[in-house]
Order: sequence, then structure tokens, then C-alpha cells
Amino acid sequence: MQTIQPLGWFFLDDEMKHFLSTTDYSRTELQHLLDQSAALKQHPVSDVLAGKTIALMFLNPSLRTRTSFEIASFQLGAHAVVLEPGKGAWGIEFEPGVVMDGDAEEHIVEVAGVLSRYCDAIALRAFPQFKDWSVDREDRVIRSLAQHASVPVINMETIVHPCQELAMMRTIQDHLGEPDQRKLLVTWTWHPRPLNTAVANSALLMASQFGMDITLLIPDEAYRLDPQFMQQAESQAARSGGRIQVSQDIEQAYRDADWVYAKSWGALPLYGQPAQEARLRAPFKHFMVDEAKMALTRNARFSHCLPLRRNVKATDGVMDSNDCVALDEAENRLHTQKALLLELLGGQ
Amino acid sequence: MQTIQPLGWFFLDDEMKHFLSTTDYSRTELQHLLDQSAALKQHPVSDVLAGKTIALMFLNPSLRTRTSFEIASFQLGAHAVVLEPGKGAWGIEFEPGVVMDGDAEEHIVEVAGVLSRYCDAIALRAFPQFKDWSVDREDRVIRSLAQHASVPVINMETIVHPCQELAMMRTIQDHLGEPDQRKLLVTWTWHPRPLNTAVANSALLMASQFGMDITLLIPDEAYRLDPQFMQQAESQAARSGGRIQVSQDIEQAYRDADWVYAKSWGALPLYGQPAQEARLRAPFKHFMVDEAKMALTRNARFSHCLPLRRNVKATDGVMDSNDCVALDEAENRLHTQKALLLELLGGQ
Amino acid sequence: MQTIQPLGWFFLDDEMKHFLSTTDYSRTELQHLLDQSAALKQHPVSDVLAGKTIALMFLNPSLRTRTSFEIASFQLGAHAVVLEPGKGAWGIEFEPGVVMDGDAEEHIVEVAGVLSRYCDAIALRAFPQFKDWSVDREDRVIRSLAQHASVPVINMETIVHPCQELAMMRTIQDHLGEPDQRKLLVTWTWHPRPLNTAVANSALLMASQFGMDITLLIPDEAYRLDPQFMQQAESQAARSGGRIQVSQDIEQAYRDADWVYAKSWGALPLYGQPAQEARLRAPFKHFMVDEAKMALTRNARFSHCLPLRRNVKATDGVMDSNDCVALDEAENRLHTQKALLLELLGGQ
Repeated sequence: MQTIQPLGWFFLDDEMKHFLSTTDYSRTELQHLLDQSAALKQHPVSDVLAGKTIALMFLNPSLRTRTSFEIASFQLGAHAVVLEPGKGAWGIEFEPGVVMDGDAEEHIVEVAGVLSRYCDAIALRAFPQFKDWSVDREDRVIRSLAQHASVPVINMETIVHPCQELAMMRTIQDHLGEPDQRKLLVTWTWHPRPLNTAVANSALLMASQFGMDITLLIPDEAYRLDPQFMQQAESQAARSGGRIQVSQDIEQAYRDADWVYAKSWGALPLYGQPAQEARLRAPFKHFMVDEAKMALTRNARFSHCLPLRRNVKATDGVMDSNDCVALDEAENRLHTQKALLLELLGGQ
Repeated sequence: MQTIQPLGWFFLDDEMKHFLSTTDYSRTELQHLLDQSAALKQHPVSDVLAGKTIALMFLNPSLRTRTSFEIASFQLGAHAVVLEPGKGAWGIEFEPGVVMDGDAEEHIVEVAGVLSRYCDAIALRAFPQFKDWSVDREDRVIRSLAQHASVPVINMETIVHPCQELAMMRTIQDHLGEPDQRKLLVTWTWHPRPLNTAVANSALLMASQFGMDITLLIPDEAYRLDPQFMQQAESQAARSGGRIQVSQDIEQAYRDADWVYAKSWGALPLYGQPAQEARLRAPFKHFMVDEAKMALTRNARFSHCLPLRRNVKATDGVMDSNDCVALDEAENRLHTQKALLLELLGGQ
Repeated sequence: MQTIQPLGWFFLDDEMKHFLSTTDYSRTELQHLLDQSAALKQHPVSDVLAGKTIALMFLNPSLRTRTSFEIASFQLGAHAVVLEPGKGAWGIEFEPGVVMDGDAEEHIVEVAGVLSRYCDAIALRAFPQFKDWSVDREDRVIRSLAQHASVPVINMETIVHPCQELAMMRTIQDHLGEPDQRKLLVTWTWHPRPLNTAVANSALLMASQFGMDITLLIPDEAYRLDPQFMQQAESQAARSGGRIQVSQDIEQAYRDADWVYAKSWGALPLYGQPAQEARLRAPFKHFMVDEAKMALTRNARFSHCLPLRRNVKATDGVMDSNDCVALDEAENRLHTQKALLLELLGGQ
């Protein structure tokens, strides 16, 4: 087996770093990860992380993220421990100073402390609670974990999904080369339930760092993303030479796009009110990606984070065409997460 | 660690092959697997599949199959990812062309596609739904998976259980040597619930390829197995020099048997009607394997796929006798599955 | 990777041994394990157990025990298979001779037999049922498993928790050196539910083997531990030069203590009657470990097996002080369990 040496990221020699959001990293640092991913795809198996361990904590179910992280660890010689505490709920206290005579049996201080003694990294999936966006937007679960851990913490999807961002950008570069000024359409699509905004937030955050010309297509103002992400993406675009516009005009949005990225999410003004949100959403099934819309683009590729409901978010014709690269993006989850593990765990 | 080279199966150089049913394989090919198993039992640990991965998908629970596959993978240097989507149900769409606005979040095309990108093989357990045999007998879940996967798919029990067949035949050969013309009794036994016919189907399919003289002992015509398996077994027996007869005469069936294999299953004409099936089944508790019946045999060995309800399917006396080889058969699950992995994953 | 040779325990050459309770081992044998643990902490990764496997069966949930055993196995080159049959219940028959026409699908004879064919050791967590202490005190589940297994069985907590004992004593020795005659306070604390006595039983059993001067602080006679453990601890103390006293006087108990170990448990006379037990327990919240109590000690360290409810069992001030070594004890679970695996699996 060939051993692949990690790139010498400067910050890893200086201080332990988490991977909570790509916005904590520069474009140069992110490109290092993407370059490393391409090398790892060529040489998938090594023992460079022999003896290392990572805890994968899923507060919400996962097939793709779990499988790709578990295999990424194995193919580098490391071992992933999969933990599913409470299946969605987690009897963990996050507030400091609380008298813990309620449901929570353990405080995040001890959870983070113990796992930091056992493992070389902790990865966490913790979806929002879908009750109060003013609470969920603070992303407190993973931030508490990171605050109290003494090993790197990796975000496997909370209100952003930075691992998906790496795979998305790796796939864009695989197919388009340099992403600067290329036209990315991020289109909302209908779905029977009001979903998490994480992947949409992340698509904007990543593409804006890489100078893309982004159009966010939404059916109604209520589907704008949270200002904290819109503003962050806009300021990143200003630095990178990219651009962000929000549109409700399907034809204009698809016109000349180089890349179409679809995702469904719930309207934040109706967060926690699924019945009302469903009524608002109902008239917009025609946002589904279909062949007619794709014909407006500049031979764009189509991708999605998966899972995808066929003939709801995109037609069979789009999914089964040669332009659909969703499986490539799924595969890149594996390669990019390996690069991430190598950088976070292999730096010493 | 000693490295064991896989036998050079011809078809693996030509095309990717699944392991859905032993009927897709010739006796020569199956015997290769059984010979390989014996060698692997002698040299259990190697790194011949280093870096390889397999997804084990359980739509139904498992201890034995999961443990034996997970350890088989580990002892060959590979890694098994255990997935339990939905615990019995699976929110997956199998029909082509459907508008997926119901429960299913993902289509089998993408599930198979993504896992094929991550793993070198996919193993699946998917029990029938026990509602409509005309649907379940088509075994659509695993056939859809195999159709859309680009890596080998292994059947860990659907309406057949070919991995159990390998272990059964390995155990027969360990104890009896050549199986041709040896008398195998496959006896129905009572159980509180109407169980899957898979192991019974499989016992017939495997034994008929190896020229055995098979008696299927049932308490009533309603307990005949599905014609697709009966006819397949009969045509295999015709080619191999074996024989199949169906009997309702306990004494005649046990007389001079070399091997007694017990299994319980529900009557197919009452499939999906458990209360009526229970009434039909009620008078037949005396089909339990006991010492008196075993005394009619030619010093036969007794085996079962496990789990087994003691003093319901077989008496303590039978289970604790030296003639009971059920643990040997369970152990052979490990060795035969290693041979299977080696052939399907180690061929290149 | 450096290979660490196991110490040459005499009994391993003679016969297979289980690890059900530390009382089956001499102080010399236990000290061997603790010394081995310290060496393993310095050299955590090796391949000394390459190809070996252990089944971890959890009838009750676990994060800490599961993670530490899984990583311990990996870092020694072995593989742990995590099994969670039935999530709390277990459809297993333990009685010999039963007609198994009820819920149980399998007998412990076959479960133990099959896992012994697949694995080099079996570890089990099986909490008591909290209905009838006269039944639970016999610890039948793990004893049946050990009786029928042909590989070592390890107790991951039943009505004792010997793995926790090893970590506790390793931590005491790390901080205090020789434990003989050092004053150990094992203090009951309030908790919203009546918990298992296992850790309290185990603290007494281990400390009494190592000559400690033990005070068991309880709020009421009803919180005395089962006589089988009290008497065993007393007879061990008599041999080791240690001492055990039971006290209801908080101030006297804390005075001059070298080590404070906290645990909550339910009163055995009200076992299976949680409402009545809650009334008995209600007035005793002031047994919480706080700074004022700790000030009475001889600069004692504080520890706990975790999870711990902050400001219920111990104050934030105690938990966040430099004297709290609960994370050290949690970490020592990993090192001591490695020593245990090495001794039980590496002896040949």
C-alpha cells in the first residue's frame, strides 16, 4: 500500500482546528483539500492514519454520510466508531450551571471530554429541531461540542453541510475546471415536507468563495435563506470576484447556466408551522428540474446532494441523462472526506 | 499473515457476477467455493482483500449473518459497513417512472449507484412482506438492487438463503464426504408463527445440485414449497443423478436417512392469513425431531440453520447429542462466506 | 508499530478464564492488569491481537463502554462486533429443558455456542430487570452465557461492573501511588431514579482487595448494599489489611478522605417499587458532593464513573476543579480494557 503524505497545512502545526463551516477556511486552504482529494482518488488505500480513531455521532439517520466516512477512515488505516445516541434526541445538557434534575443524564462538557480522550476526532450530525429558527440558527449543539472538545470536531450536517460543499466543488472542478465566473444556478424545488436549509446555505457559501456567478432561484420571497448566510456569501463573493443574485424568474435563472444544483427547503418565516408552510409551497411544483429547463442552459451539468425524489425534484429524463453528475458528487464525498481526515488527523 | 490466493474462477475475468441464488452457479463452481472454504478454515487470517469494503444492508434483524459476514471481512483485511435502513421498512422506490411524492425518499437506482461507488460489494437481507406471495415470490427488492448495482450483490436471505446453502453443503461434506445418493430428509416442523420458506427452498436447491436423494416431509399438501423452486430442484436432480420426493409419512421419511435437516415454514395457500394458517398448523406439533425419529435413520446427523426453539422444533436430546451438527453449520457460515467474498472481490 | 507482549499469566496456559467479577482474581493478578495498562497507555497502537475478534453484546445502551472497547480492540489489531439484540430485551431462553413455545426464539446454549465459534471473546452488558432483587442478585444472564461459552466472557456491567473497577483503581494508583490504608469515601448521592447498585458494589470489591480504608456513606440503612457484596468486601479487607465501615454521618465520612467516589443507587428493600423508593430518597439531595464537603478531606481527588448529573450528584465547582479526575478514570477504561483483552486473547 502506498502512503500519501498530507499537504503541510500551516495552521495544523499551530493549533487544533475544527471543521464546522467552510467560512472558517480560506479559498487557498479549501483548494488544498480539493487537490488532496483528487490525489486520494488515484491512490485510495493507505495506512497513513493507522491507529487513529474518529467518533461519528448521528443524532439523525444517515446512509451516505455514514458509509462514506466509515470507508474513508478504513481506507486510510483509521477506524470510525458509529454512535447513534437516542436516535434523534440526545439526553445531553448544553447550558452551563444547570441543576440537571430533568431528562439529561450528561453534560456536553463530559461528553466532549470523554470522546476527546478516546478519539482523534469527533464528527457530529445534528439537524435543527424545526420549532424555532431563532434558536436553531445559532447551531448550539455542535458549537458546544467544539468548545469543550480537545480534538477536531467535524460537521456532518447541522444548519450547514460543509462536507457536502467540498464534494460539490470537487465535482464542479472535475467537470468545469476553474469555477471562477461560471454560472451556478441553485434552484429551490418542491418537496412534500419543509426540509433543512443546510445544503442550500452551504452551496452559496462554497460557490461564493470560489468566484462563481450564482443565481438563487426561489418561488417566493419567503424562501430566501437566512441573512447570516446570504450576507456571508455576498461578502465572500465581493472578495472572490463572484456574484450572487436572487431570482423568481425560472427562465432567466436557467438561461446560460453552467451548473444546476437543486435543493428543497422550508420557508423560514413559517418555520415550525408545517401546515401553513405546505399551503405556501403547494403552487410551486413546477420548479422541478426538467429537460425543457435544462435546454435553456449552456449544456449545464445537473447535480444534487441526494436523496432525490424522482419526478418531484427532477425528472427521470434529467436524472438519467449524461449531464447528471449526482453520483459523481456522492462519490466525491468519500475522496474529499479522506482529504479532510488526513489534514485534521495526519498533521502531526 | 499468510495470503491465500483465490481460485481462478473464469467468469470473474469476464463479467461481474452477483450471488443471488445458487441456481445461477454450476455444481463445479459451487464446489470450488466449498473447497476454498475448507482451505480458509485452516488459514483464517490474511490480508488478501486489504482495502476492500462491503455494505451489509439489513432490512430485517440478524445476529448470525451479520457477525459472520463482519468477521469474514475483517479476517480477510476488508471492512464491512453495517446498514439498517428503517429497521424493517425501507423508504425506497423500486418502480421505474414513478412520481415520488409518497413515502419513499430515494429510488433504488441512486441507492445502488451510490453504494457501488463506495463499496466493492453490497449484501442485502430483505425478507418477504408476508402479505401476498404472488408479489413476494418475485423477489423484486434484491433483483432491483442487482440490476442497478455495478458491484456484486450478495443475497443474505430473501425468499432463498444461498449463504446458508453453502454452509449446509460444506457441513454435509465435512461429515459425509461425497453427497451423491446420500439420503437427505428436509422435515417441516411446527413453530408458533408462519415463517419464511427461504431456508427450505434453499435446502432443496442446493442438495439437488449435489445429487442427493431428498425427501421433503410435510404435514399437509398446503406445505408444499413454491413450484418455481420444486421444479428447479427437480430439474437439477435430474441432471445430477439425485432424486426428490415429497412425503407425509414420518416413519417412511426418516427411515435410512443420512442427514436430517429441520425447518418450519408457513403454508403458501394461506400466506398473509396467519390466524387461518395457525389453525391448519396446530395439529402438527408431533413433527418435532426427537430421539425416536432419529433412531429410524442410518445414524443420521441432525442440523438446522438456527435459531431453533428447543423442545418445539427438536428435543433437548437431539440438540445435545453428538449427532447434532448445527453449530458446525453455523461456523461454516463464516468459512463459506469468506470463500464467497474472496471470489467476488478478489478476482481481479 | 511496536508489539507489546502480554504478561505471562499462569492461568491462561492452564484453562480459559472469564472476567465476570474481580473477586475471581487475586490482587496480584489484578495488579498485573493495572501494570499492563500503564504500559499500554505509553504504547497504545500495536498488532498484537491481529485477526482476533470480540463480540460486544449490549442488552442496554452504552456510549462510553462501547467506544472504549471498540477502540481498544482496533488499537490492538483486533475487531469488535457490536450487537444490540432487541434493544433492552433479549428473546433468549436461559432455563434448561423448557418447551420454547413462548417469546424466546433461541436458547443461550446455541447463542453462546455460535458466538464461541465466531469470536475469540464475548463481552456482555445486561442490567438487572429492577423487578425482583432476589432474582437479579443471581446475575443469571451472564452466568449462563459464561457456562455455555467456550471463549472468555467479559462483564461490561450487570450487578457488578469489574471493568469500571480496573479503571478506578488504575486512576487511584496514577494519582496516589500505593492504595493501602488510603482513605476512600464511597458516597451515595441523590438521583431522580433508583439506579443500579453495580458500580457501588464494584467500588467496594476492588478497593477492599487493595487494602484501602473504605467508608460507605449512605443516607439510611435501606441503602446498604447486598450482603453478598458487603461480606465479600469485608473478607477481602481482612486479608488485605484494609477496612470497611458504613456511615450516615456526612462530616465524619468526608474527614481526611484521600479519594471521594460518588454514585447513586436505589434502596434494595424497595427494589421494584420506584414510587415508594422515590419518597424515601427525597429528603437526601444534600448528599451532593460540593466544595464545602471536599474541604473536609485531605485534599482528596473526586471521581465518578460517568454519566454524572451536574449540580445533582456533584456541583460545577467540584466537577471543574483540578481535583476532579473523572475524565482520567474514563480514559483509563480504554487502557485497562486493552490490558484485559491482551491477557484473555493474547495468552496463546
